Amino acid sequence: MASVSKGKEAGKDKIAELARRRGFLWSAFEIYGGASGFYDYGPLGALLKRKVEEVWRDFYSREGFYEIETTNIGPRRVFEASGHLGSFTDRAVVCKHCKSFFRVDEGVDVSEPCPECGGELEEAGEFNLMFQTRIGVPKGEIEGRAQKKSEGYLRPETAQGIFLNFQRLLRFNRDKLPFGIIQIGKAYRNEISPRKSLIRLREFTLAEAEVFVGSREKNNHPRFGEVKDKKLRLIPREEGGEGEKEKEKTIGDAVRTGIIANEYLGYHIAKVEEFLDAIGIPMDKLRFRQHHREEMAHYARDCWDAEFFSERYGWVEIAGMADRGDYDLSAHASHSNTDMIVHLQPQVQGEADKDKVKVKTKIIPHVIEPSYGIDRIIYALLESAFYEEQVGKEKRNVLRFKNEITPIRAAVFPLINRDELKKRARQMFQKLRDEGILVEYDDSGSIGRRYRRQDEIGTPYCVTIDYETLENDTVTVRERDTMKQVRVPVAEVKATMILSGG
Amino acid sequence: MASVSKGKEAGKDKIAELARRRGFLWSAFEIYGGASGFYDYGPLGALLKRKVEEVWRDFYSREGFYEIETTNIGPRRVFEASGHLGSFTDRAVVCKHCKSFFRVDEGVDVSEPCPECGGELEEAGEFNLMFQTRIGVPKGEIEGRAQKKSEGYLRPETAQGIFLNFQRLLRFNRDKLPFGIIQIGKAYRNEISPRKSLIRLREFTLAEAEVFVGSREKNNHPRFGEVKDKKLRLIPREEGGEGEKEKEKTIGDAVRTGIIANEYLGYHIAKVEEFLDAIGIPMDKLRFRQHHREEMAHYARDCWDAEFFSERYGWVEIAGMADRGDYDLSAHASHSNTDMIVHLQPQVQGEADKDKVKVKTKIIPHVIEPSYGIDRIIYALLESAFYEEQVGKEKRNVLRFKNEITPIRAAVFPLINRDELKKRARQMFQKLRDEGILVEYDDSGSIGRRYRRQDEIGTPYCVTIDYETLENDTVTVRERDTMKQVRVPVAEVKATMILSGG
Repeated sequence: MASVSKGKEAGKDKIAELARRRGFLWSAFEIYGGASGFYDYGPLGALLKRKVEEVWRDFYSREGFYEIETTNIGPRRVFEASGHLGSFTDRAVVCKHCKSFFRVDEGVDVSEPCPECGGELEEAGEFNLMFQTRIGVPKGEIEGRAQKKSEGYLRPETAQGIFLNFQRLLRFNRDKLPFGIIQIGKAYRNEISPRKSLIRLREFTLAEAEVFVGSREKNNHPRFGEVKDKKLRLIPREEGGEGEKEKEKTIGDAVRTGIIANEYLGYHIAKVEEFLDAIGIPMDKLRFRQHHREEMAHYARDCWDAEFFSERYGWVEIAGMADRGDYDLSAHASHSNTDMIVHLQPQVQGEADKDKVKVKTKIIPHVIEPSYGIDRIIYALLESAFYEEQVGKEKRNVLRFKNEITPIRAAVFPLINRDELKKRARQMFQKLRDEGILVEYDDSGSIGRRYRRQDEIGTPYCVTIDYETLENDTVTVRERDTMKQVRVPVAEVKATMILSGG
Repeated sequence: MASVSKGKEAGKDKIAELARRRGFLWSAFEIYGGASGFYDYGPLGALLKRKVEEVWRDFYSREGFYEIETTNIGPRRVFEASGHLGSFTDRAVVCKHCKSFFRVDEGVDVSEPCPECGGELEEAGEFNLMFQTRIGVPKGEIEGRAQKKSEGYLRPETAQGIFLNFQRLLRFNRDKLPFGIIQIGKAYRNEISPRKSLIRLREFTLAEAEVFVGSREKNNHPRFGEVKDKKLRLIPREEGGEGEKEKEKTIGDAVRTGIIANEYLGYHIAKVEEFLDAIGIPMDKLRFRQHHREEMAHYARDCWDAEFFSERYGWVEIAGMADRGDYDLSAHASHSNTDMIVHLQPQVQGEADKDKVKVKTKIIPHVIEPSYGIDRIIYALLESAFYEEQVGKEKRNVLRFKNEITPIRAAVFPLINRDELKKRARQMFQKLRDEGILVEYDDSGSIGRRYRRQDEIGTPYCVTIDYETLENDTVTVRERDTMKQVRVPVAEVKATMILSGG
């Protein structure tokens, strides 16, 4: 085994450099000087992102949740009701000298010098973080009213699209609670001055689940037993106490002692950990931190962040779990003057009781929301999968992705650059591709160099065709992490790769 | 076999009604009175859309194309360069009386009365169709220049994000031509007055492929032989002739006689047909129509529409194939003052010639673009899959989706509402779901009613558990289109469904 160093302190920018050079992540509009807060996914980044989204979709689909897809643009009234128009703001300071803006809660304060030029800062007020636009041709632009009517905003979260469709979704679920709805899509926040690459984007991808449940049922999750013994690193908020302390608790204990508000929230915190584990976020770099009361979003009753420890950025939120109560449904009910009520069919205990229970209960359901920042998760995966290793006299970069999310599944090489080997390798490449495996072909440079190229993008298997292949239909399969090679019959190549997980 | 009627003339709104009622498509923000041009996908619609996108992605991935994901918002300079800021406009008329706006090229003209109220229309000028917004906190808002600098737009096509990354993509492809890049994502057009549900949306999904090729290679597609004998219904434009006529031609003939400009365009027209066929667009409702010169987008040298015949809307474009020449790359090269050049490595014919050919050629590649309107395709799939049939004394609605795209793969029923059957059915349901099959469970109402429910959403298989199941582990599998039932061992249920395609 090669000597291994994470090489992160020394190589902080190596991940960004690799991500750029190998086509994972590119800062957007670079030929026009770029714009902070906007990133593009290159070919390998898009594959990685797609895989993460697929695993996520499948994960919640197995919970019985259905996905919907709602619009990115919404009219003003939606965000008046949701509270985003009034409350979704950040305080900014501006430098009198260089005119740079800064968010106040990023450690910058008006009493300090400008981080950019050392100039004097002054208060610049509260800025709403939504991108505004206008829908359609404004009628009678002279009147302010008409213009207001045509105002549109880019959604700051995907959740509102789910809430707006609540009645239809309830009907789709045959008027029964609980049910869960998921959505993956773009969301937008016009950050005052984003400076942290993928961590603070103006356009980003959220994967959100909204679970609708009767408030009385929140402490009665049917599958809570499956997660209650799971241990989590928790940092509960301290109410006027002696500062926050990390506690390792089982979810069962945390709910029983009131640290986590209810079983539904506890169950979904467990599910967040389970998902992050499944895609390869290292569990020793993950903790769950409860929001302070003043830190919570305007809609939240309780809120926990799943935080990943980044060697570059420190603790970073990569998912949030909120108990939104009935805030959103009640707000939309009153603003739209529609009904967001569920008529509960009381559970009939036995056949004999049937006649007794005829009174229906009307309730507005509560919402438990796990919400994932996909771009931050991609960053966390890149950072934690990256290793620099010494192999003999050479260095290699390697991305130790789990097979479930790795962009390219296998590479096929002819051992040397001869037509008969190239032809056979191309055949093998085509065959694997036809079987739906994402595979690359490479015949340029030494075999060692080709291995390094694949290691660096996280390809778990390299299949090499040599003269023995032409004789007896066997190839070598080399595994990324161990760098071990095994000789296997061509017919078993696919099985070899599949048996090894993913 | 049941008597069949397409029932579309009579039932024009039945498709929209079914799509709404069963959770395929919902007009957005309906609780706030809606906004024309915006639709949400409900749970079944989102599944259908996801399947179509997956088949598309897989289809172009097998062509060797890589996907990227670029931002929805772009700064002003991008669209100045692309020509959208200047040329992406529609002419509008407005009613003097009711103030309604209309697009001029939808058959409405200033000489006619207002289609809404009969009032007098007047010219309202040209409207740019891009949604505008502002990026970040504008510095020094007093100066117009600074404000202009922060202007952003929502992309009217996904293609520009690919062009902006051309140099990086070229490097990813190791500086070789040709290569293809795909992108699926939202695009936005602030239509003057959209009135045609899914056919004219303000926010919609495009699936686009950009193929970069040397202009001299456009008539030399390496796989043209595979498509050249394919026959297509073509409507070439007539230059001052006696009107357009449909011609059935092979692609080889169409390219040879100059009807289709080159092999690359021809190849990709063939691929568009192949994809649309694969997802179930009926080939007898598909034709390819060439744009008139004045109809073409500002970037196009030649352009063909794949048109679907809708019984409701007539011929509707569902995909477009354009030869964009070097328009986009040249425009971005000059606006950004960067290089969009490829240094061609001349093909060495034989080892002996190696010394002779050392002169590299510098070119700006041309772009061939197949571009698909996913929402219109979804509409076309719903309309063409919908049948109303007489079964005995009852009517049934059925969506005859191909297995590849059907939202739900199977439904599991207990024959009657008894605990022992329900338990066994739930087991079966869970087992199929664990195997990754999208399956529903239903125990409510008569078995006939449950069949109708599944027919109406296009579920190809219904699996029924009865008392014989408990005895000998067999179930009935009922097929949607033939309504035939076969009895199969439980162990063969999955294979029965998979063998039947998809």
